[in-house]
Amino acid sequence: MCEEISSQRKDFLANDYSRGFIEYCQFRSETIKKGYFQSRVRIKEHHRQQDGFIHAGVMATMADHTAGYSAFTLVEETFQILTIEFKINFLRPAFGEALVCRSRVIREGSQIIIAESEVFDIRGEEETPVAKAMVTLMAVSKDKLVQKG
Amino acid sequence: MCEEISSQRKDFLANDYSRGFIEYCQFRSETIKKGYFQSRVRIKEHHRQQDGFIHAGVMATMADHTAGYSAFTLVEETFQILTIEFKINFLRPAFGEALVCRSRVIREGSQIIIAESEVFDIRGEEETPVAKAMVTLMAVSKDKLVQKG
Amino acid sequence: MCEEISSQRKDFLANDYSRGFIEYCQFRSETIKKGYFQSRVRIKEHHRQQDGFIHAGVMATMADHTAGYSAFTLVEETFQILTIEFKINFLRPAFGEALVCRSRVIREGSQIIIAESEVFDIRGEEETPVAKAMVTLMAVSKDKLVQKG
Amino acid sequence: MCEEISSQRKDFLANDYSRGFIEYCQFRSETIKKGYFQSRVRIKEHHRQQDGFIHAGVMATMADHTAGYSAFTLVEETFQILTIEFKINFLRPAFGEALVCRSRVIREGSQIIIAESEVFDIRGEEETPVAKAMVTLMAVSKDKLVQKG
Repeated sequence: MCEEISSQRKDFLANDYSRGFIEYCQFRSETIKKGYFQSRVRIKEHHRQQDGFIHAGVMATMADHTAGYSAFTLVEETFQILTIEFKINFLRPAFGEALVCRSRVIREGSQIIIAESEVFDIRGEEETPVAKAMVTLMAVSKDKLVQKG
Repeated sequence: MCEEISSQRKDFLANDYSRGFIEYCQFRSETIKKGYFQSRVRIKEHHRQQDGFIHAGVMATMADHTAGYSAFTLVEETFQILTIEFKINFLRPAFGEALVCRSRVIREGSQIIIAESEVFDIRGEEETPVAKAMVTLMAVSKDKLVQKG
Repeated sequence: MCEEISSQRKDFLANDYSRGFIEYCQFRSETIKKGYFQSRVRIKEHHRQQDGFIHAGVMATMADHTAGYSAFTLVEETFQILTIEFKINFLRPAFGEALVCRSRVIREGSQIIIAESEVFDIRGEEETPVAKAMVTLMAVSKDKLVQKG
Repeated sequence: MCEEISSQRKDFLANDYSRGFIEYCQFRSETIKKGYFQSRVRIKEHHRQQDGFIHAGVMATMADHTAGYSAFTLVEETFQILTIEFKINFLRPAFGEALVCRSRVIREGSQIIIAESEVFDIRGEEETPVAKAMVTLMAVSKDKLVQKG
């Protein structure tokens, strides 16, 4: 599942990753392979709680969004990825200067795709695992998508 | 579990709710009772994805944070609430002008507290359920908390 | 979602409910409505752990299976229901003489169906909630099912 | 986390594993290391559904129970392990002649222990991953346990 994908598709996914709420959260794509997506965020004050710890919502959003893009590497451009549900365990408090999220597809069905995300807290040279998520996704043909309008 | 709590405690919780990442996300507390917390966010462009739908991470962050504060209404001020894990199902796409989150404690243990959050999409006069989460929380005495420093 | 369904379909579902592993576990269907399924098990020694508490696996199996049948009430006979995933929280130890499980569909999509199951411990006249699950199910046309042979 | 544990403790855990409901389900312990537990079940007709597939409840029970024992390898004998919650994704249908479950502790807190379980379907010489679970456990001193009597 880890052969390379076209650099054109990579560019599309890297760009597409950081829009809307994700741009607002300042998450950036970092490494893209078939069935794998890695993202990073430099932590600023607005990612933290009042006590200095990074908010669980930052990690959850990153785990969900990055998992979605790991699935996105496996489908045709005519498909979109929806999150059906996810579950995330918080392993330790996060308080470093950046977070890295690594997401891998663990089951590629024709419709249902299951991915795992691991979030690491970057403290100087060290990486500490701080959260782990299992994400159930669905590939939907764009022309079948519910329209919001 | 739904008797009132002191207005002083309510003021503290309402203020405390909207700090750090949550302030950045512009979530506001709305109704506070013992074992219950309700929050709201007016949706702006930065809460959406490129396709106009509200990002799953907005709903997940709201579900987690509001659940935490529903638990917070039940513990002494010397305790803090940590999220151990949560699971969220996305029921329908959200695209309205606001989200409301209602969180209720469904099991109050001496340490482990379990809460449910329901997120509703506000479209004019209508409320549509768009996400539901189960959240496992832990009440920890502040003097036992891991320090980040 | 709670109109009645044909008594013929009910009989089919009630029978179909208690086969294979579920028959071995001695779970029985009790009440069937559209989008709702209730089941019961009389607890015997083999449902317990060595310490007398009812095993979490009994509650999880009941929560999953009953949720599946709540979804089954909503689809045509040509469809089968598969569990994609579930999450269950254990609220209190269970040690009574029976368990009752009540499952309700909370989101009926054309393919993805989401149900909740609540498991109650029966202690004399009293019912105590002991577990709650969220279950993601999929309705699959029988002729598309993977064959095991 | 994978150094060996005393053979006396191993014998205790191997025996303790297969009692009550788990004995009824015929699950057996297979390999025990610090933070790791592996179990196996030979599939009989009563583990299946009417269509021949192994029931999700068999896999869920195995994933939960084996995860609990992976945590059990890390605590003193005066502690007991309780499941707070778990989430399980079913990756593929299982229909082989045995299941193997491998559980690993991924986070060992002083109270909260998080483990992962992977369930494999044994089909002749082949092992196919069929389910994956994340399990949140709690180590409780036996003298603090709620008594059922």
